[in-house]
Amino acid sequence: MAKEENDKKRIAGCSFSVYPMSDRFVDLIISAIKKVDTSKVWMKTDKVSTIARGRIPHIFDVSQAIFLDVAKSGEHTVYSATFSVGCPGDTEGHTFMAKDDTPMNTNVISGIDQKVSAKFALYPMGGGNYMDLIYEQIEAMKKHGLDVNLTHYETMLEGSAVDVFTGLKRVFEAMEEAGSSHTIMTVTISANSPSPDNIEI
Amino acid sequence: MAKEENDKKRIAGCSFSVYPMSDRFVDLIISAIKKVDTSKVWMKTDKVSTIARGRIPHIFDVSQAIFLDVAKSGEHTVYSATFSVGCPGDTEGHTFMAKDDTPMNTNVISGIDQKVSAKFALYPMGGGNYMDLIYEQIEAMKKHGLDVNLTHYETMLEGSAVDVFTGLKRVFEAMEEAGSSHTIMTVTISANSPSPDNIEI
Repeated sequence: MAKEENDKKRIAGCSFSVYPMSDRFVDLIISAIKKVDTSKVWMKTDKVSTIARGRIPHIFDVSQAIFLDVAKSGEHTVYSATFSVGCPGDTEGHTFMAKDDTPMNTNVISGIDQKVSAKFALYPMGGGNYMDLIYEQIEAMKKHGLDVNLTHYETMLEGSAVDVFTGLKRVFEAMEEAGSSHTIMTVTISANSPSPDNIEI
Repeated sequence: MAKEENDKKRIAGCSFSVYPMSDRFVDLIISAIKKVDTSKVWMKTDKVSTIARGRIPHIFDVSQAIFLDVAKSGEHTVYSATFSVGCPGDTEGHTFMAKDDTPMNTNVISGIDQKVSAKFALYPMGGGNYMDLIYEQIEAMKKHGLDVNLTHYETMLEGSAVDVFTGLKRVFEAMEEAGSSHTIMTVTISANSPSPDNIEI
């Protein structure tokens, strides 16, 4: 494998959580985690979130599968995640790199037709041209089959959960291909919200 | 007021959400929003989160008060927020700047003795020395009366909710005082979690 190819396969990771707004939240989360194949990521849950580390396709695959398995209960469920690649402060100790990009949870994800509303933000660290990189990826997101709208601080996405996760993964990978040394992406995805489109409280 | 002083009072904002893991989530959130005085911020709720904009002390005050009012129900409740100041893409249209820094919700917050576990991350945009700025503020956080531990991608904080919010506000303000042109801070705060300290799933 050429060095250039190797560089594209840096270890990435995410700190993610799934919040079911339900009295059954413990059962829903534990049941989802048990169902999902996490063999291609290093994963650890602490008091605030779960860390998953490995190749980019696997961290998206695993966290998406856990979220979708909970959301298919019909309960209002939110997924929140911070994705990171290239963090200079990141330790190498827990690296876990599968040899391939084949996702392990297609069986969990496929067939779940879940509409979602989401927000994401991209933070390319260390350079002065970061706003250009962000705007390019917001434009790219429009080609991924999603409704894309600007809001304060983040970009709103609406569509099917599978399209949203695919779009987010492509944007994150595109930052690697563009040579960003350290990229952060934050994501919030909401399913089964009872909120009307325009909320007046 | 000197120009230097004025510069310290840029409009800031946050996109925040409160997630009660409870069948009563709608009532808990609406009741909290109605109780909290939002007169010193511009605030709007959409399908994914609530945006609050104004002076730094007020965006912390309002979002903290809504979170604590929900958390005092005893339900497992999570607060998630992205704070931003100095975003070049931010519009000026919805600015709402109160004349002073006196918080409006001391009555809601005071007396709530809530232990929390939290994670935060700081993203100073546009410069090459961003890791130094981050490490400085992690050190500073240790002086704010909190247990501070490094984890992947974020820093773990444990202590009382009031101390955690005060520490986060001080760190965010310190970035302004340090002259950071555009600062992002992401925060997740968890209250009443049934999770043990070390989770094995």
